[in-house]
Amino acid sequence: MPHEIKGLNEECGVFGVFDTKKANQLTYFGLHSLQHRGQEGAGIVSSDGTKLKQFRNKGLLAEVFANEADLDSLDGNAAIGHVRYATSGNDSINNLQPFLFNFYDDEVALAHNGNLINAKSLRRQLEKAGSVFHSNSDTEILIHLIRQKRDLDFIDALKASLNEVKGGFAFLLLQKDRLIAALDPNGFRPLCIGQLKNKAYVVASETCALDMIGAKFVRDVEPGELIIIDKDGLHIDNYTDDTKLAVCSMEYIYFARPDSIIHGVNVHTARKRMGRLLAKEQPVDADIVIGVPNSSLSAASGFAEEAGLPYEMGLIKSQYVARTFIQPTQELRERGVKLKLSAVRGVVEGKKVAIIDDSIVRGTTSKQIVKLLKEAGAKEVHMRIASPPLRFPCFYGIDISTRAELIAADHSVQEICELIGADSLGFLSTESLIKAIDIPSGRKVENGGLTVAYFDGKYPTPLYDYEADYLASLKQQEERNFLR
Amino acid sequence: MPHEIKGLNEECGVFGVFDTKKANQLTYFGLHSLQHRGQEGAGIVSSDGTKLKQFRNKGLLAEVFANEADLDSLDGNAAIGHVRYATSGNDSINNLQPFLFNFYDDEVALAHNGNLINAKSLRRQLEKAGSVFHSNSDTEILIHLIRQKRDLDFIDALKASLNEVKGGFAFLLLQKDRLIAALDPNGFRPLCIGQLKNKAYVVASETCALDMIGAKFVRDVEPGELIIIDKDGLHIDNYTDDTKLAVCSMEYIYFARPDSIIHGVNVHTARKRMGRLLAKEQPVDADIVIGVPNSSLSAASGFAEEAGLPYEMGLIKSQYVARTFIQPTQELRERGVKLKLSAVRGVVEGKKVAIIDDSIVRGTTSKQIVKLLKEAGAKEVHMRIASPPLRFPCFYGIDISTRAELIAADHSVQEICELIGADSLGFLSTESLIKAIDIPSGRKVENGGLTVAYFDGKYPTPLYDYEADYLASLKQQEERNFLR
Amino acid sequence: MPHEIKGLNEECGVFGVFDTKKANQLTYFGLHSLQHRGQEGAGIVSSDGTKLKQFRNKGLLAEVFANEADLDSLDGNAAIGHVRYATSGNDSINNLQPFLFNFYDDEVALAHNGNLINAKSLRRQLEKAGSVFHSNSDTEILIHLIRQKRDLDFIDALKASLNEVKGGFAFLLLQKDRLIAALDPNGFRPLCIGQLKNKAYVVASETCALDMIGAKFVRDVEPGELIIIDKDGLHIDNYTDDTKLAVCSMEYIYFARPDSIIHGVNVHTARKRMGRLLAKEQPVDADIVIGVPNSSLSAASGFAEEAGLPYEMGLIKSQYVARTFIQPTQELRERGVKLKLSAVRGVVEGKKVAIIDDSIVRGTTSKQIVKLLKEAGAKEVHMRIASPPLRFPCFYGIDISTRAELIAADHSVQEICELIGADSLGFLSTESLIKAIDIPSGRKVENGGLTVAYFDGKYPTPLYDYEADYLASLKQQEERNFLR
Amino acid sequence: MPHEIKGLNEECGVFGVFDTKKANQLTYFGLHSLQHRGQEGAGIVSSDGTKLKQFRNKGLLAEVFANEADLDSLDGNAAIGHVRYATSGNDSINNLQPFLFNFYDDEVALAHNGNLINAKSLRRQLEKAGSVFHSNSDTEILIHLIRQKRDLDFIDALKASLNEVKGGFAFLLLQKDRLIAALDPNGFRPLCIGQLKNKAYVVASETCALDMIGAKFVRDVEPGELIIIDKDGLHIDNYTDDTKLAVCSMEYIYFARPDSIIHGVNVHTARKRMGRLLAKEQPVDADIVIGVPNSSLSAASGFAEEAGLPYEMGLIKSQYVARTFIQPTQELRERGVKLKLSAVRGVVEGKKVAIIDDSIVRGTTSKQIVKLLKEAGAKEVHMRIASPPLRFPCFYGIDISTRAELIAADHSVQEICELIGADSLGFLSTESLIKAIDIPSGRKVENGGLTVAYFDGKYPTPLYDYEADYLASLKQQEERNFLR
Repeated sequence: MPHEIKGLNEECGVFGVFDTKKANQLTYFGLHSLQHRGQEGAGIVSSDGTKLKQFRNKGLLAEVFANEADLDSLDGNAAIGHVRYATSGNDSINNLQPFLFNFYDDEVALAHNGNLINAKSLRRQLEKAGSVFHSNSDTEILIHLIRQKRDLDFIDALKASLNEVKGGFAFLLLQKDRLIAALDPNGFRPLCIGQLKNKAYVVASETCALDMIGAKFVRDVEPGELIIIDKDGLHIDNYTDDTKLAVCSMEYIYFARPDSIIHGVNVHTARKRMGRLLAKEQPVDADIVIGVPNSSLSAASGFAEEAGLPYEMGLIKSQYVARTFIQPTQELRERGVKLKLSAVRGVVEGKKVAIIDDSIVRGTTSKQIVKLLKEAGAKEVHMRIASPPLRFPCFYGIDISTRAELIAADHSVQEICELIGADSLGFLSTESLIKAIDIPSGRKVENGGLTVAYFDGKYPTPLYDYEADYLASLKQQEERNFLR
Repeated sequence: MPHEIKGLNEECGVFGVFDTKKANQLTYFGLHSLQHRGQEGAGIVSSDGTKLKQFRNKGLLAEVFANEADLDSLDGNAAIGHVRYATSGNDSINNLQPFLFNFYDDEVALAHNGNLINAKSLRRQLEKAGSVFHSNSDTEILIHLIRQKRDLDFIDALKASLNEVKGGFAFLLLQKDRLIAALDPNGFRPLCIGQLKNKAYVVASETCALDMIGAKFVRDVEPGELIIIDKDGLHIDNYTDDTKLAVCSMEYIYFARPDSIIHGVNVHTARKRMGRLLAKEQPVDADIVIGVPNSSLSAASGFAEEAGLPYEMGLIKSQYVARTFIQPTQELRERGVKLKLSAVRGVVEGKKVAIIDDSIVRGTTSKQIVKLLKEAGAKEVHMRIASPPLRFPCFYGIDISTRAELIAADHSVQEICELIGADSLGFLSTESLIKAIDIPSGRKVENGGLTVAYFDGKYPTPLYDYEADYLASLKQQEERNFLR
Repeated sequence: MPHEIKGLNEECGVFGVFDTKKANQLTYFGLHSLQHRGQEGAGIVSSDGTKLKQFRNKGLLAEVFANEADLDSLDGNAAIGHVRYATSGNDSINNLQPFLFNFYDDEVALAHNGNLINAKSLRRQLEKAGSVFHSNSDTEILIHLIRQKRDLDFIDALKASLNEVKGGFAFLLLQKDRLIAALDPNGFRPLCIGQLKNKAYVVASETCALDMIGAKFVRDVEPGELIIIDKDGLHIDNYTDDTKLAVCSMEYIYFARPDSIIHGVNVHTARKRMGRLLAKEQPVDADIVIGVPNSSLSAASGFAEEAGLPYEMGLIKSQYVARTFIQPTQELRERGVKLKLSAVRGVVEGKKVAIIDDSIVRGTTSKQIVKLLKEAGAKEVHMRIASPPLRFPCFYGIDISTRAELIAADHSVQEICELIGADSLGFLSTESLIKAIDIPSGRKVENGGLTVAYFDGKYPTPLYDYEADYLASLKQQEERNFLR
Repeated sequence: MPHEIKGLNEECGVFGVFDTKKANQLTYFGLHSLQHRGQEGAGIVSSDGTKLKQFRNKGLLAEVFANEADLDSLDGNAAIGHVRYATSGNDSINNLQPFLFNFYDDEVALAHNGNLINAKSLRRQLEKAGSVFHSNSDTEILIHLIRQKRDLDFIDALKASLNEVKGGFAFLLLQKDRLIAALDPNGFRPLCIGQLKNKAYVVASETCALDMIGAKFVRDVEPGELIIIDKDGLHIDNYTDDTKLAVCSMEYIYFARPDSIIHGVNVHTARKRMGRLLAKEQPVDADIVIGVPNSSLSAASGFAEEAGLPYEMGLIKSQYVARTFIQPTQELRERGVKLKLSAVRGVVEGKKVAIIDDSIVRGTTSKQIVKLLKEAGAKEVHMRIASPPLRFPCFYGIDISTRAELIAADHSVQEICELIGADSLGFLSTESLIKAIDIPSGRKVENGGLTVAYFDGKYPTPLYDYEADYLASLKQQEERNFLR
């Protein structure tokens, strides 16, 4: 499904490169392959060794750098870049990253993928001490924490600050003469290191960015690590030993690009295994299997192979739905006008269809898909979901904000099936999900090194500033369920 | 493959609707589903019963109508629209359709998909008689021919004029109080009629436009027909009896949307059959089958099923390649930066890969794909093409202009295989192509009702203005081949 | 007054240059100095000797050529350009000039300043013969007339065609190898010839365009003349001998730039004389004299000198009123928000003010000015108009379309004075206007070589297609006056 | 002269309004009348009583608010706005004002006109204490100073902070429930208070903004004052008693709008007096007097009246020079292409011309004007400047940055006369300048309450961070003069 209609949104993608010609262009192409992680804004900061230069704006990367001169202006041999999902307010360019901070004695740029769960209390504490914030982003906190530690060396101040912030984070920092990367103690978000043929190092949210620019994969950044890249090369350090891998399972299920490899596991392959296991757990009496394009095609082909059913292209997704697109009015929608997905009548007519999707958030899209298929003549529509029911919010960098929106928070599988109008519905179990992803042993801890809290409510960290609201929402849900 | 890098370009898509509220919006959404037939410009003319109104501009439909007010201004109960591929020059808005002509006694709008092959001689003849042309488009000729016949009634003048123009054409005309459609005597381009729930009639290049707006398919427009839709409903007439169905086979192979049905044949299903027959004709010793996204996925899944091989997603196409995108420099490209397609290393590494594409034009893309797969670790790359070698140009509305560009015009299959670096290469035979498409009998004439001249050079009509150049190019080719 | 709020609009400005490097840039700068003659659209066609190239768009010249590349694309040693006032409809680029016509045997570009008064009947006659028009502009008629005369040489066909069109016109035509200019038999619109230091000839609507590009004034184009500029230089020919100079007096009063010289008379100097004669004819008991910026400042300074009163800057016009400017709502306007003009309280407070304007069209602006001055503390406001009352429409190229809009068509001077709230009001007499302009003798015929029909209703030509409507409007006016 | 070519640039204009409907629109129109004080960027922050909202962008006000929705989004009953001259870098939106700062316990918006001369040392001191700055603007310092004083009440913290910053400043601050204005102890920049008919108070850089929106003038803000406007009305307080009026004389000479009244003196009237005194001090044997449009027209008319010479419009300024305008190449400029100013040949030909300008900065424009007039036939060109020679930089908010650029810093009047090619040259004396402005007594201190340091180098305050550079530049100048 296109990200915008799914109701699940990644927060960001980051990319950095150090010590190579055309650092600006490499960052641009690297960010391009991370565009699926954020479409609302983009920016790049480059260093020419003496000065940092910034350009950022709202829109897709290609819109932000519509004038090639703006990219050319970011000269120098190092750069970091950012693609961003969320924007708020009409002056939101303030919140676009990388941030660039000028001090009389330093310049620092900062890009962030994740979510800090003690940001509010840290900000209040800093403001009480006289700090002035300019964005609404939690990202800005890190630089204030660092600058408060004026008696320490920059790296020591950074390490101390990284121990103060909690939650999910993958930070890139650029100074005039070095590139720094840091990952949270649970490794919630993916972050990897690559190397170009000219020996320059690259850091990126996903390995697809390395492939895009012809860089070789070196290693994943591990939880608690601090990576420093300077003229002397790559330095691997860590700011804490208290780590436990709990990478976000939604990266494998939905967010990451199929060609990316996260902690040794290819995303497409994991999805295909989810589909296979789903076919075993939730078998279906169907004539054909179709996937919801594009994110569920891998799972659907796995399902079809395991079930021994033909895999067909029964839904077509428009390539040309721009954000400026005029939306059909309610009246036209009722008269049958659709936009993003079309059913292939020649494929589904008269058939019992197994339709595979990666997840169900609010259920509205699932309902539309069932309707689309039935209108195109499908005799039966059996929906199978290649992940467990989403019942709890994420606090580490995915936008599944409120429980009230999650259809599975308040409804049983049978109820959801009726609400979306399917003839049957089945979800993958959490155990099979973990088995399908199968992060190579050694790195595994509990839950196979994954965060599955969205399904079982067991978060790998305290919730800090979110604790009170979360408990209140659980209470409200109990009351809703009691009243029903 | 994205159309722009294939080297094969459709000329246009047309859409019209008569006697319904929101005719402008229905036309917009209808054109949206035809966007794959032309991305360089779009326009709509509406009629409110007393006056025609026009809006057109360069760019994708969503860009042309970026301000909803421009669409709203096209009020009335009837409209025709057009999406256009080719533009020439920086003032090309002149050439964007629908054209709107105002006369003291009439207003006529005109939209066209196809190519007239006697346009040049007709234009010269008209100019000698004092006509003034405003566009470089062959489309404008029709209105001049009609207006020259001032002693005839409009429909009679139109019929006479349709007998003067030669080539491939699907014309839509809008007057204040009627919508007219006409198809050439060979039916080179698809054109179909649908009906909304409120009984209003719709005419469109492909049935996917009917599905998009919730219209029911009524029938295809047949060669030589003249369709008139007015307050009294649908009138089927014809301007000639000398017809022979020869629909462009490239519509099934590459251009049309998989969910469209042309002359009773679903495009996806035909492509899947092409894949199946290709697997029989050109078997391959491979571990996996992958298709070039998006147009070859249907054929690839048919191939995989017939061959009993796993169908995998081994190539990923970027969703975010806007036309404004900054292109990698030659230097960066050589250093490995790629843009539109990525190989999934986790899928292809160490494998013998059968890669299915719908066609080969210049061969450059095929070469890139083979390289991409090999760099991602594929052990062997066997390319199979779900259509015969493209050796002759099209003169009826597809942009395969010169023979010199067609790699198969001058090279044997073995030579092409070497040029693109594949381990083996095989094409579908013309016989199997015809068998795969299989237009229902009754309509069939020679070649199963298809034009296959791109493969065998046997054109279903005289070539008129193109005859001389075509013969010269054949001669040049013979000389090139002799010299080699 | 800014043109847009006056209600008087010039139709166009034209510029052409032949046989010089940078013809495109010279045309751009020439048009820039003619921008006051039309702000709604602009275009240039250049010739490189083998091909004509066109660029045109809506907006000010600087907006049309916002990308310098668009100007650069118009290469070659000759060019013509056009600035246009009126646009109609949202697709009006069709109506922007210069028009460019391609024929199998010729290319012709055409730019026009004026209005043809038999355009409607000529167009009907041409359409009956099969002609297809593409614009709503009367300008296009000329090329159809020429192309209908296929048996004549181009210049002979042009001469014959110029004898068929009636009204006010200054035409520029560009062919690959020559530039042609033609003026109507009354010379309603100004047109002059200049020469660059490199001997290249220039043709322009006003001499200010010659000054702008450093060209020397050669001579005015005379009524009925046909000017041909080619490799052999300047050729002065004429297409008719039946001529009588009747240049539009509004050019001197309001339209033309103060630094232009038309038929030997500097516009600023003429305006200053109008002011002097106005002071004699309509003396005033005032403390200070102020002019309405910018067009009335010359007349105001003449008035002040003649009256022996101080000339003060009592009204300030904003330099920054862009067309995109948000307009104050009615509510805010009533609360006192103004935009384009401000009164200088320090100058007018407690004073008896003589305010000089060049003309009164609808009277709304005059009313606002009186109010503004009184609110700023003026004790008395005496308005003096440096031209006679505008009572009749223009048919030769100025947009004073309907009599119903002209306040002086239906009201006496005393009534107007009351309607605008002034303490007294006086107009210049037609005799004094003619005396003030004073075109050098020899050229003079009746009315000193001027058209003063806007004041006395005596048109120097038959009205052709406008005759019936004009007589009807006179009748309606009589009825209105009778009823009052 | 247009500001951009003069080399003298105002830093900013500010506007605020409290407790009225349509606060956003009133601020927009108020800023519009201050557009001459800054054309590079604009912004507005509004308060709806619970939240502040910001919109700002690069460009003219009308460009910034090209979409009326952006203005409408700034709802609420209070607002402050800013127009800005200088921008630096391509991401300069960061530096556009009003700034908006969000704290957990407050929201503050800040707009500033002026220049702080101890900004650099204050910033370094604040950064050493951990502060993080986001703009390069000196304005941001104030909020950091305030937030450092967390133990004080906001107004007390503000007062203390205002005593720490040095230089020229007119600050507007907006909180949810009040509007605050503060002026530096010398009142370098103008700032006035007005009142709408609905009793809402307005604060603006110039009185022309009050006139624009129909507000009545209440009083000027005096040096050292702190104005607080809240639900209870207007409160006049002060943060220091150590004040001495030294308003920037360039406001009267060049920057302010002619209709503004600053400290009781109408700008047009002052300029006219400058012209009169100039005529006495620097008499000239001339036929006519002309002014350089638009800023020197007042002085020119005063000169003409005093000298008993005719005041003529001999130079025309183009109304249509947009910033996007293509500039003539050097080659074209040498061939005579000009852009912004044209001479009226009919006025100046054969005449001895006295040309009045308000000031000379680098001398390049003066040189062009003399050339223009001579090319148009002027027999003699006598330049008279209605202010003394500019020899020293301004540090309080005008952009006359380096002495090296000021032609009068290194050259005598006779030398300048030769460099610009005039037949004679004369400047107004500082004594006459002070006499012409003539701020009403009571407020007068030394130099008639004016800063005239640009002419005599005697600055009314220590120069703080600029001291060292200033002394160095004086030294360099001495050396240059010695070498000559």
